[in-house]
Amino acid sequence: MEKLKRTKVVDALKSTAYGSIVNVKGWVRTHRSSKAVDFIALNDGSTINNIQIVVDPSKVDANQLAQITTGACISATGTLVESQGKGQNVEIQCDSIEIYGLCGNDYPMQKKGQSFEYMRKYAHLRLRTNTFGAVMRIRHNMAMAIHTYFHEHGYFYFNTPLITASDCEGAGQMFQVTTKNLYNLKRTEDGKIDYSDDFFGKQTSLTVSGQLEGELGATALGAIYTFGPTFRAENSNTPRHLAEFWMVEPEVAFLDMDGLMELEEDFIKYCIRWALDNCKDDLEFLNKMIDKGLIARLQSVLDSEFVHLPYTEGIRILQEAIAKGKKFEFPCEWGDDLASEHERFLVEEHFKKPVIMTNYPKAIKAFYMKIDEEESG
Amino acid sequence: MEKLKRTKVVDALKSTAYGSIVNVKGWVRTHRSSKAVDFIALNDGSTINNIQIVVDPSKVDANQLAQITTGACISATGTLVESQGKGQNVEIQCDSIEIYGLCGNDYPMQKKGQSFEYMRKYAHLRLRTNTFGAVMRIRHNMAMAIHTYFHEHGYFYFNTPLITASDCEGAGQMFQVTTKNLYNLKRTEDGKIDYSDDFFGKQTSLTVSGQLEGELGATALGAIYTFGPTFRAENSNTPRHLAEFWMVEPEVAFLDMDGLMELEEDFIKYCIRWALDNCKDDLEFLNKMIDKGLIARLQSVLDSEFVHLPYTEGIRILQEAIAKGKKFEFPCEWGDDLASEHERFLVEEHFKKPVIMTNYPKAIKAFYMKIDEEESG
Repeated sequence: MEKLKRTKVVDALKSTAYGSIVNVKGWVRTHRSSKAVDFIALNDGSTINNIQIVVDPSKVDANQLAQITTGACISATGTLVESQGKGQNVEIQCDSIEIYGLCGNDYPMQKKGQSFEYMRKYAHLRLRTNTFGAVMRIRHNMAMAIHTYFHEHGYFYFNTPLITASDCEGAGQMFQVTTKNLYNLKRTEDGKIDYSDDFFGKQTSLTVSGQLEGELGATALGAIYTFGPTFRAENSNTPRHLAEFWMVEPEVAFLDMDGLMELEEDFIKYCIRWALDNCKDDLEFLNKMIDKGLIARLQSVLDSEFVHLPYTEGIRILQEAIAKGKKFEFPCEWGDDLASEHERFLVEEHFKKPVIMTNYPKAIKAFYMKIDEEESG
Repeated sequence: MEKLKRTKVVDALKSTAYGSIVNVKGWVRTHRSSKAVDFIALNDGSTINNIQIVVDPSKVDANQLAQITTGACISATGTLVESQGKGQNVEIQCDSIEIYGLCGNDYPMQKKGQSFEYMRKYAHLRLRTNTFGAVMRIRHNMAMAIHTYFHEHGYFYFNTPLITASDCEGAGQMFQVTTKNLYNLKRTEDGKIDYSDDFFGKQTSLTVSGQLEGELGATALGAIYTFGPTFRAENSNTPRHLAEFWMVEPEVAFLDMDGLMELEEDFIKYCIRWALDNCKDDLEFLNKMIDKGLIARLQSVLDSEFVHLPYTEGIRILQEAIAKGKKFEFPCEWGDDLASEHERFLVEEHFKKPVIMTNYPKAIKAFYMKIDEEESG
């Protein structure tokens, strides 16, 4: 007999081949027993939705069936049928179960909701929860959207060195990378650490940005993007700081400011559209359980034309708001860099749409940015 | 007047809109002058092919025209016409040129062929050469093929930590990552380096593989792949060793050995097909200038069914060859790991197609690999 091929849960749930024999494999989310029937909700990570396995207890060894608890890993074979219950289209009338692995009742990812703080303790298992599963599937799709967007627009993916001897814009503390023996550190004559015996013969660190190498790529290949990890050794535990994170940096030759703003708006909308088109179930879960305004907020970005706001005009709006009684923690005089609260006021309260701020004063620009002769003051 | 939009060279060369006015921007590959006409070969990195700009010297300032040498960055506007010359379909009858940047005659990437060794000295410019341009465009396309393949097959892209406290299979020397002040290294009471004040409060290194975290991803999401940088601090200057390189690692739950071999063959063929379909010009350049058998070799992999060869059978074939007079540098008795020369003999001489070797003895397998009860000896 031909071996029955496994069907992924995401595909089984979409199937209308009622009456066909299917095999699904995955991890048990819940198992409810009664005398007449057992219901097992099975998930294999391919989707946030579980498939319901309906087991006739007379068909499966009772002792074996009793051991199948949340977290157990099983293979179930049976007939795909239209579901009588609510919330799903199909279910499986089970003929046989094979157990790959059992789970005790101390399995930490039980059905009940867990706090993120609790799940941190089980980083190796939390990917099996609805929330982390949704986040990982969306993350995958965003990576795919990023690559597809740039590919379709003629950009080349460009991998810049992660171990580097140069800082970039001094954007943060760097991690040192070394093969030196810390128990026997050679010094030069003037007492400095001697890096001549380090791997690259000089002091090296993890990159904080691929931008400078990216610019070289753009002036050879025309248009490149980086999308890879960068590192910041800032010991700051806020949602805005990570020691290691992935970042997208497009660099394009022959692109003026209007073209750049067009790229930014088009790219962001493309990624959001991809998410709404490809991650609907996961977004709906997050919208329901984590962040009620999520989908509406994404949709509103899609529906908005981005505001192009010169810095000086932005400061004027902020000062006008202050004059009318708006309180900010940080000052915002002409020449100050904007704080989060100022950015949020402009985007969320004043314009109610995304804002690209342009023409910053020279003094608060990064060294590599083009100087605007009129506005730089 | 509406600003004329830049056309990429790759698009201009494919265009048949003869008679239309186009603008191209890029870097000059060659500039040939005569009394009646100037020819400028312009490249913008979007393709390996140059577009020919035909300049009537009476139309452009002679002094300006004379300065345009190899490496100069210019913008050229003119009429797209069917080419009279050989080797291209279209050229541009130039009306005006704007110079963005000039290049002296000491510009190192001149038209004549340069050795790779020479180009190493100009790493910031070598991307503008035909060879590196071709390699980078193919590299981009291979990344795109990898992501597209796995996306289409229901895998999720999974980014594993690069800074890690764990080794993986001891695959090579690791780079240490630290924020410790090497001028003032704290020690514990027993004389060891005290890592309590290091960034993560413990000793950390750059990862040599994302595999172990990838396995956790696969047992939650069903099927994942990593595709990111890994690091090996092996000071070995061979084509097989790099301090920093990108690697693909799929991890799949519920996949048996047959499924794994099918994945490997299908994935490799998909990537090769993508290259042949999308990088034809670049591959033809490399096939002509660098590696004469390249395209034939790629095609032969596509046309072959991969051999599935148990280790014991492989050793038998090798020993048979030795008995017939084949000389190898390294021994190959049952139980030995295969050297490059053995692998090449099996693939290139014996089978003349790709070979997947299976059922290795337990003693030379990595610790995490499934043990084959029959063959492990």
